[in-house]
Amino acid sequence: MFIDKNLYVGIDLGGTSVKLGIIDDAGNIIAKQEASTPRQKYEETLDLFVELIQETGISLKEIKGIGIGVPGFVDVEKGTIANLVNVGWKNVSLKDDLEKKLGIPVVVDNDANLAALGEVWQGAARGAKNIICITIGTGIGSGIIIDGKIYHGKNALAGEIGHLPINPLKGNRCNCGKLGCLETESSATAILNYALRDKNHGVNTIISDNPTTKDIFDAAKSGDKVANEAINNAAYYLGLALSQISHALAPEKILIGGGVSKAKEQILNPIKDYFQQFSLTELNEQTEIVLAELENDAGIFGAVYNAIINLDNR
Amino acid sequence: MFIDKNLYVGIDLGGTSVKLGIIDDAGNIIAKQEASTPRQKYEETLDLFVELIQETGISLKEIKGIGIGVPGFVDVEKGTIANLVNVGWKNVSLKDDLEKKLGIPVVVDNDANLAALGEVWQGAARGAKNIICITIGTGIGSGIIIDGKIYHGKNALAGEIGHLPINPLKGNRCNCGKLGCLETESSATAILNYALRDKNHGVNTIISDNPTTKDIFDAAKSGDKVANEAINNAAYYLGLALSQISHALAPEKILIGGGVSKAKEQILNPIKDYFQQFSLTELNEQTEIVLAELENDAGIFGAVYNAIINLDNR
Repeated sequence: MFIDKNLYVGIDLGGTSVKLGIIDDAGNIIAKQEASTPRQKYEETLDLFVELIQETGISLKEIKGIGIGVPGFVDVEKGTIANLVNVGWKNVSLKDDLEKKLGIPVVVDNDANLAALGEVWQGAARGAKNIICITIGTGIGSGIIIDGKIYHGKNALAGEIGHLPINPLKGNRCNCGKLGCLETESSATAILNYALRDKNHGVNTIISDNPTTKDIFDAAKSGDKVANEAINNAAYYLGLALSQISHALAPEKILIGGGVSKAKEQILNPIKDYFQQFSLTELNEQTEIVLAELENDAGIFGAVYNAIINLDNR
Repeated sequence: MFIDKNLYVGIDLGGTSVKLGIIDDAGNIIAKQEASTPRQKYEETLDLFVELIQETGISLKEIKGIGIGVPGFVDVEKGTIANLVNVGWKNVSLKDDLEKKLGIPVVVDNDANLAALGEVWQGAARGAKNIICITIGTGIGSGIIIDGKIYHGKNALAGEIGHLPINPLKGNRCNCGKLGCLETESSATAILNYALRDKNHGVNTIISDNPTTKDIFDAAKSGDKVANEAINNAAYYLGLALSQISHALAPEKILIGGGVSKAKEQILNPIKDYFQQFSLTELNEQTEIVLAELENDAGIFGAVYNAIINLDNR
């Protein structure tokens, strides 16, 4: 195999699976691998990364750098992680350990940040400088890109908009202890809770006893009022929160990603409507709210681009 | 006069007065001037700038650059201003016109942005990289500093948190047409309105028929319930809005400036209390909320520092 471009490895470590891609600096995926995440086995997971690279048949010598995204807080300078609840890691020096093992420079960051960066490089925000990429799944996360780079804020706490207080007097109790975090009012979990609450109160609905989020969106398409109300509630708080953040940040684009975004216009349109209702005319005119594009590949693209821009600066 | 440091001119153009300072690159004010703002007289205002410099006795030859802050939107790259309502300017090329007149490089920006930058250089946020500086007066504005520089956002709309929708269903009508903007719920005007509304409804209070904001704060100190309630309402929305923004930006510091901040702890403390109630523990622990320090000089310090960092990059 003759390759004339620089190759990078992007790794997206999730609670259930590891995704790994070999991607060139023009954004072409050369190879892709996936495996289950070994739980609470740090060394074994590093070995798995090496195996997955070897299985592609591409030699380590051809790899210029490695980017990794993990689901939690990262000390980006040191490449260390204090606590990765979903994976069971505590106090690991991921960057140093992997660099020692492979002899290739490694750059580590948070997965939501890298998803946002991936979209800027090869996705829905291509070429944009300042964006917010919100991920709506069982929880809510976000990555903020400023001037084309990940914005971390103090102690990497930027983008924690899952805990933005959106309904702080009357909302639901969040795991963090507060009331009415965006996550408790607008996540996939929240949509299910709204629908089931109404169903359990005897409101007429076609929703089953044990629905998935997709069931709610399907029911809404059929005109089910309970389902439509549940989606509308979530969209109201999302549109409001994104409007609030945009009055501070004035981003070029807002990207909607994560499991809930698979409902496409069904979630995008009401978010846009509420954003418009709550925002200055000038912000409405200039802020594009669109679906994220890269889906499961956002993390590996972002990890690779993060390696490219950080290693080139050295 | 022998001067061994580089000298800059900082100009803070307001709706009522022009403040001008000659400041060296170590942050020492060498001379200061103030005059009334000529309304709707662009050329006359430029001449006034020149006069004010001449009156200091410092020769134009000694000035390395000029920074100017204006109360409105600026095209920062071109140094042009489309519409400056408070001063009566339309479609002016301030940077070009002044550079032609004086032969010295000019950098123009918005006044709230420059106040924030001034605080980072010589005030309450000295040395910080990422801050929000909110100005609470008859309206509410803010400047956002990211990575030590002014963050403008798309079309310079960043920091428009006066119009952040904080009480969008039940709030007061804003000049912008929306309901419950932060400005209608938490400005000096809002505090007066809360107090007068209660007084006019016959609630017992020591507040006079035609109070100033200072009267409200004085009455609150004497234990007046109407006054305390008015301040508490404003602080509630300020604490909530700053918490919302901080879940996105995770700033190192939040600075409270503007006329209302002259009430010091009387406004600062309840803002901090509400921020704490609505924020993640980690954000509470790391976010310092403090009073701005430079008061009327923030604008000229910021204008000079903006000239220093931008002209040095050329």
